[in-house]
Amino acid sequence: MGSFFIGGRSATVATAEPVEMAPALHGPVRHFAQAGDYEIGQIYAQVMLPAEPISPHPVLLWHGGGMTGAAWETTPDGRPGWAHRFLAAGYDICVSDAVERGRASFPPPALVEGKPVFRPKAEAWETFRIGPAQSYATDPGSRRPHAGQRFPVASFDALCCQFVARWPALQPLALEAYAALVESFDGAVIVAHSQGGGYALETALAHPDHVRALVLIEPSGAPPPGKLSASHNLSELAGIPHLFVWGDFFAGDTLWQVYRQNVEAYADVLRDRGGRIDSLDLPAMGTKGNSHLLMMDDNSDAVFGMVAEWLKAQI
Amino acid sequence: MGSFFIGGRSATVATAEPVEMAPALHGPVRHFAQAGDYEIGQIYAQVMLPAEPISPHPVLLWHGGGMTGAAWETTPDGRPGWAHRFLAAGYDICVSDAVERGRASFPPPALVEGKPVFRPKAEAWETFRIGPAQSYATDPGSRRPHAGQRFPVASFDALCCQFVARWPALQPLALEAYAALVESFDGAVIVAHSQGGGYALETALAHPDHVRALVLIEPSGAPPPGKLSASHNLSELAGIPHLFVWGDFFAGDTLWQVYRQNVEAYADVLRDRGGRIDSLDLPAMGTKGNSHLLMMDDNSDAVFGMVAEWLKAQI
Repeated sequence: MGSFFIGGRSATVATAEPVEMAPALHGPVRHFAQAGDYEIGQIYAQVMLPAEPISPHPVLLWHGGGMTGAAWETTPDGRPGWAHRFLAAGYDICVSDAVERGRASFPPPALVEGKPVFRPKAEAWETFRIGPAQSYATDPGSRRPHAGQRFPVASFDALCCQFVARWPALQPLALEAYAALVESFDGAVIVAHSQGGGYALETALAHPDHVRALVLIEPSGAPPPGKLSASHNLSELAGIPHLFVWGDFFAGDTLWQVYRQNVEAYADVLRDRGGRIDSLDLPAMGTKGNSHLLMMDDNSDAVFGMVAEWLKAQI
Repeated sequence: MGSFFIGGRSATVATAEPVEMAPALHGPVRHFAQAGDYEIGQIYAQVMLPAEPISPHPVLLWHGGGMTGAAWETTPDGRPGWAHRFLAAGYDICVSDAVERGRASFPPPALVEGKPVFRPKAEAWETFRIGPAQSYATDPGSRRPHAGQRFPVASFDALCCQFVARWPALQPLALEAYAALVESFDGAVIVAHSQGGGYALETALAHPDHVRALVLIEPSGAPPPGKLSASHNLSELAGIPHLFVWGDFFAGDTLWQVYRQNVEAYADVLRDRGGRIDSLDLPAMGTKGNSHLLMMDDNSDAVFGMVAEWLKAQI
């Protein structure tokens, strides 16, 4: 086990208002200059290695928007998460926090455009397809999730403890740092959720030689067909096995329909080039009730089992 | 291995400007309400358990100001950190990120007074006693550390990747969450660094029945003698073994002299009550050159060995 920071650079704040504060309990007030040099744009990555790995290819676990690597650890209702499952299955794992998230830290305001964007519970309730927007309530007992919901709804507030702020302007820095992370491995499997799926597909397009397989858990974005077709790396990318996994409750969710169409358009281009594209459309396979957070739902172990079986056949 | 969030509460932002952003790569711009409910004030804690623990008492590792649990993991120059060492020695470990830091997240501006305070490299250079203030330079090759410095100076920029922002107004919430963390264990050993040391001593004073031993690595604060003497818990606190560990380069550092005097005043009160107070004053013992970051210095394993030997004799 170990951890490291990768990507990023030194940057300087030329002028900034200093701050007076007492950082130590019962200690003196001190003058904190805010101008100066900072490291910005790095990713935090924690690595765990089983004694006898079953594969030379590590599994990189990339979280979704407004979240951190904690998303892959213990589920909000206290069950072992996918980080545990991949480790127990014998894979080296690397759980990261993207630029600006969690332990990766975020830059001072002078070094990033715009303000942090926060995720209120109601937004997560709707966007993660736990329930319809109007069915969220402050009182947990009054919330009405989708019928058959597999996310452990009684632990929804525990999930909300995981949310961290984000800055739209930092997306290019995140992509750079993810590239540095992937390049630090000979050949990695990327398992990515939601926004992380978009980062994974962009990173694979830019550095296909470092990626051995892609598991996309409800990715919210992908390189558009025009960009894909124009890339010198298209045929190499088509050689990387892709698995897309989709949950339930897309009907009537116009946002998720758009996100999924964008991803399907990517998959279509790759399929036309002979790409290795597989999908697990869970409701179509008879598994109903999964939210956007497949790795936390009550059947997270069963979905993991399907993913692990697919992965074992690829690498 | 597992992780959880503890402490905190639901809080509501009544009004806030919404934000327009495209969170998914190549995806549509969306309207993000910023008003709504949030979870705030929780701590993130990651637990790792050896197969055969040598003690029923877990070791809680609490980081210092402007840092996260990453401080206990791999050192900035890539050696195993104290989290590894405690685990390898057979202790259950719990590495946390305090309220507002790292994976614990920070609240929206409407729910916290003041702005985030950042740590420029020059401030860390001086406060962590790597070198005199004026000897910091943007160019790593031009920096002049204290003579005999044991911190791996070539990795100073890697250290700076660990720094995260903080809010002075959140200290009471952090204390509450640390209390909840300690209360979740029957009897814990707290190993705390710097600002975390002040939190540890306050928490032990409030909840002595849950604390079995205290290892304070250069604590920057402590309950003042008046508060200590007035507490109903003083005699119970005096029964908890304390170990204070101090590095080098205090001479001429007025800030650290004040911090240390505050801590010595605490120790004096406890000693008068028959308290179990031990100290490792490393330079006085012949080990010179340690910075404020003893667990990252080039002799971090040797210092760990002294701490582990002490701890084994106490619990």
